Amino acid sequence: MRLKIIFCYDGSEFYGYQVQTKEDERSVQLELEKILSKILNTEIKLVASGRTDRGVHALKQVAHFDVQQLKMDLGRLTHSVNCLLPEDIHVKTIENVEDSFHARFSVKEKKYRYQIYLGEYSPFFRKFAWQLRKELDIEKMKEAAKYFVGKHSFHNFCSNDDDFVRKIYEISIEKRENWVYLDFSGNGFRRYMVRMIVGTLVEIGLNRLSINKIPYYLNECINDRISYKAPAEGLYLYDVIY
Amino acid sequence: MRLKIIFCYDGSEFYGYQVQTKEDERSVQLELEKILSKILNTEIKLVASGRTDRGVHALKQVAHFDVQQLKMDLGRLTHSVNCLLPEDIHVKTIENVEDSFHARFSVKEKKYRYQIYLGEYSPFFRKFAWQLRKELDIEKMKEAAKYFVGKHSFHNFCSNDDDFVRKIYEISIEKRENWVYLDFSGNGFRRYMVRMIVGTLVEIGLNRLSINKIPYYLNECINDRISYKAPAEGLYLYDVIY
Repeated sequence: MRLKIIFCYDGSEFYGYQVQTKEDERSVQLELEKILSKILNTEIKLVASGRTDRGVHALKQVAHFDVQQLKMDLGRLTHSVNCLLPEDIHVKTIENVEDSFHARFSVKEKKYRYQIYLGEYSPFFRKFAWQLRKELDIEKMKEAAKYFVGKHSFHNFCSNDDDFVRKIYEISIEKRENWVYLDFSGNGFRRYMVRMIVGTLVEIGLNRLSINKIPYYLNECINDRISYKAPAEGLYLYDVIY
Repeated sequence: MRLKIIFCYDGSEFYGYQVQTKEDERSVQLELEKILSKILNTEIKLVASGRTDRGVHALKQVAHFDVQQLKMDLGRLTHSVNCLLPEDIHVKTIENVEDSFHARFSVKEKKYRYQIYLGEYSPFFRKFAWQLRKELDIEKMKEAAKYFVGKHSFHNFCSNDDDFVRKIYEISIEKRENWVYLDFSGNGFRRYMVRMIVGTLVEIGLNRLSINKIPYYLNECINDRISYKAPAEGLYLYDVIY
């Protein structure tokens, strides 16, 4: 039987979602696989909706795994996993799904949120937001964000060498007091893609880059990877929709 | 000349405000003294408004220190200190004060905030709130809080063996969505005093302790220290007024 597990994590003390080659580098996947294997008394391998990088958080991450048989009910399994997990990961639900469900290939939409804090530096936000402490031209950023919406080749906005055509459904930018929230929704995002778009939008908001440069970078014939990348701590995997 | 320094810190990675005897146990005081001594090229000793315990935070802590002479302006000193400090401490201001100012003895009022989170467990709040995940009778807690206001002998509500008469000016309890904020103001609080009062109020809010027991514990003739102590991570030194 196939099970779908929904969980969240504070990424600040992980080297990313995925199992690392070095044993002393904590990963969310390994922590979860260890506990699930222990409780279910069989080796469990997780397939997640995608990776998150070192320091990146998840408010809702989804994975699936297969078990031959299950002797306890799913509520009890969830509770047992949470009891054994470290405090920076929390399982929200574990549910039964069709064998055709695939946590990565069945994804219809992914949502990311990026948080920027513009107020005086606060030690409390250091792992949870980009503390920029500069004036941002939000209207200009909203204008620039429109260029990214739609189907584009994001080869200049990600670290991958192939497969970089993605469709962004929506980018919304909202300022509330000292906070700026950038919400992304799309059919998928390549490595560093959200952070590189945020970095570019911030350059524009700081009046250090012209909006007119965006079509140049989005031109599939031009190879000129942008060098702006927002820091990991402001990024949250927000939702995965199937 | 005497200088007043106002700063905040995320207490989760400190063994408390005060310098510890073990060298590998980080303290806020030592981090600040090290940096100030380095920049001012003389040994600096801080006198703070009071200590905070391991894991307790400060949104506004105040200390004073003396220097023979100062070659840079205070804005530049503040900036230099912040550049060298670890990310979990931040200096808000450094200002010149009269020699008669004393960070501890001149205190008129101290304010503490305690945060309780009642929603589903979140890895993001694990160092910043007491995640209780139980129903609380807030009205009963407000009723009980009134008993603590005024001048009392708090010998059963602190870990100290003497000098436990203090005056609490106000306790306000407010619930907003899944959060409960308990705000304390008084002329001073002894070690664990806020946490022991919060622990007691929560016992009452959980209907595990009767309000009628409070006068018993506040009776100066009775020695029966209460055993409820709210965890450190929910407590914030909020303000110090002179």
